[in-house]
Amino acid sequence: MVQQEHGPVTYGVIKESNQQESRVALTPEIVSRLKKSNISCVIEQGAGEASQFSDDQYDRAGASVVSRADVFHQADVFGFINRPTDEDLAALPSHAWIVGMLGSFTNQEYVSRLDQAGLTALAMEKLPRQLSSAQSMDEMTSQNSVMGYKAALLAADSYGSFFPMMTTAAGTIRPAKVLILGAGIAGLQAIGTAKRLGAIVTGYDVRPASRQEVESLGAKFLDLGLDFSQGQGEGGYARQLSKEEQSQQQAAVDAKAAGFDVVITTAKVPGRRPPVLLTKNGVLGLHRGAVIVDCAASDLGGNVEGSKPGRTVTDNGVTIFGVPDLASGVATTASNLAARNLADVVSHFVTPEGLSFDLSQELDDALVVAGRNVPSSGQNVSDPDASDHKEGDGGNE
Amino acid sequence: MVQQEHGPVTYGVIKESNQQESRVALTPEIVSRLKKSNISCVIEQGAGEASQFSDDQYDRAGASVVSRADVFHQADVFGFINRPTDEDLAALPSHAWIVGMLGSFTNQEYVSRLDQAGLTALAMEKLPRQLSSAQSMDEMTSQNSVMGYKAALLAADSYGSFFPMMTTAAGTIRPAKVLILGAGIAGLQAIGTAKRLGAIVTGYDVRPASRQEVESLGAKFLDLGLDFSQGQGEGGYARQLSKEEQSQQQAAVDAKAAGFDVVITTAKVPGRRPPVLLTKNGVLGLHRGAVIVDCAASDLGGNVEGSKPGRTVTDNGVTIFGVPDLASGVATTASNLAARNLADVVSHFVTPEGLSFDLSQELDDALVVAGRNVPSSGQNVSDPDASDHKEGDGGNE
Repeated sequence: MVQQEHGPVTYGVIKESNQQESRVALTPEIVSRLKKSNISCVIEQGAGEASQFSDDQYDRAGASVVSRADVFHQADVFGFINRPTDEDLAALPSHAWIVGMLGSFTNQEYVSRLDQAGLTALAMEKLPRQLSSAQSMDEMTSQNSVMGYKAALLAADSYGSFFPMMTTAAGTIRPAKVLILGAGIAGLQAIGTAKRLGAIVTGYDVRPASRQEVESLGAKFLDLGLDFSQGQGEGGYARQLSKEEQSQQQAAVDAKAAGFDVVITTAKVPGRRPPVLLTKNGVLGLHRGAVIVDCAASDLGGNVEGSKPGRTVTDNGVTIFGVPDLASGVATTASNLAARNLADVVSHFVTPEGLSFDLSQELDDALVVAGRNVPSSGQNVSDPDASDHKEGDGGNE
Repeated sequence: MVQQEHGPVTYGVIKESNQQESRVALTPEIVSRLKKSNISCVIEQGAGEASQFSDDQYDRAGASVVSRADVFHQADVFGFINRPTDEDLAALPSHAWIVGMLGSFTNQEYVSRLDQAGLTALAMEKLPRQLSSAQSMDEMTSQNSVMGYKAALLAADSYGSFFPMMTTAAGTIRPAKVLILGAGIAGLQAIGTAKRLGAIVTGYDVRPASRQEVESLGAKFLDLGLDFSQGQGEGGYARQLSKEEQSQQQAAVDAKAAGFDVVITTAKVPGRRPPVLLTKNGVLGLHRGAVIVDCAASDLGGNVEGSKPGRTVTDNGVTIFGVPDLASGVATTASNLAARNLADVVSHFVTPEGLSFDLSQELDDALVVAGRNVPSSGQNVSDPDASDHKEGDGGNE
């Protein structure tokens, strides 16, 4: 078992299979961090290129830079930004562990396949965010934070006028009026960034707590004249509104939006169709030259009616950016943060004997979505094969 | 004389002939402004589209929205963002006036052709910027201000990490270190914008006064350990350095630049090859993932050795943006400002009897680069044909 030379557990990361993805699940900084936890790293040649990390940097940090096939051969646990493709799954050794955003809320069939393949899967989207021990593992928060920053920059870069007020000899330019719909992590980050740039910023979210959060950043809270109290959903995300509430909210937001130059929507609800926060009527009310950035645009729909991934210009001259994966556009930082989140999850499951989980722990019970019945040294100690299985995970495949 | 119905002088603007140009030399706001000075406006259909101004808006502001041919037939004085092409010149009526950035510093042959065509040409680049009456006409300043803002946004949007410092549960992200070379209007605006975004900003310029200007914005001034006093050139622009000074400066800047994540160069010198502020050595010293925005990139060369218009990624992983015309990317505001600058120049030359100049005035003497020998009511009063000629300029062509 070659891995013994490197330590009991080897963490492997390949270049993301999605060609559009610039992020990478392991960065040189995190290689060093994992080494301190006695976890060895193997990474595919060129995996960090689009995130501006060279093979040389990984090598200097102590990772083995190898071929894709060798990553699959050498590692025990595999980290992913986007969940493994069918091809990736076929290449994974049986009994391997995987960790990443697996889409388990929307695609139970995928999880069942992981289970049938004998994999142990840790779903980052299932993280119990309220646990303080989980905070440094919170990939949703870290990536949404990057997304909100980038959404504000994209809007500023695309808008035909200035965000800040400018007084020049040739006249005064009024600051841009920016509306942020959805005031979660991404929305608050977008508010902060647009404010930094000097825009007049208004935020809105159905959660009652959001007014205070928006106002604490120095932004205005959009007063719709409606009461959506009881709006906080599970895990701190916006709950799905009732149909009647949705149409009330839409009509009010549509009407108010007309006064803004830029609208940024950030209401992603994991595993559900994103709520519509701006209907076609709302888009029609915006002025020529207005810019919309819809961070929730996806195959499931978006926050803006009629938005789709990519850039669209409406008949009334409004530019809509449907941007499903903005965090990938700030790849160096997004990768560093995600890599840290993933690494902390991996470290949590590493014991002196190898990888193991304990379903009586809230964190483990939430994260382990496949391989729950696979015996592991941390449970089912009555199973005589348990430690063998784990050792198998450690390098024999 | 149809023009008499609209007033003594008609100002005409066509859609810019350069397909890459999003700006327009007249905006609805400025139509209203000119009307108060008794100047009528004709504008080509769709001319404002890329700047987000609809024909309807021009119409409501009081302009006649007509075909391109009709603009050429109806106007007395023509405004341009980019100097007229050969085709434009052929379409202009003889004795017409034109106003715009004409490139007269670099291309005297072009100016001679204007002269021979019987045109009266006002060169915006020749504006005596030190005159207080000229400030609202200063298109170089207004467009460079937009350019500096956009340069910082482009850099922020392209850089793989955050400009501001961020403290998250998954670690602290250090702020970006941004170096601005050239601290004129554009450079100071870039400094201000990068600072707004939370970057650590350092500025540099050879003009002795620039240290104070940079520091007054809260940025650091780059200390090269060299003395380039006596560096202020004509009109407030950076002078050309001697060869020895240039190589000293280059070596020092190259060495210092290695510590930065982003370099923005803004040293455009009208009518001269832009000074090199970062050599290939300097670019080589930058880290993988660093971003350079060269606002002076052009056919004359740029501030960065090896930069060219467009996006280049060097072998050492540095992305260079050569961006000759960033102001066009903030088209609505850039157009409003340029239109105001041009309109104020036109208004200056309008008398109750029509268009006229007086070469004994500093402003007129500087701006009028072609048609100086054409008799005008403001001069050559001994010429009995003078006022006829001027009336001819006013509408008969």
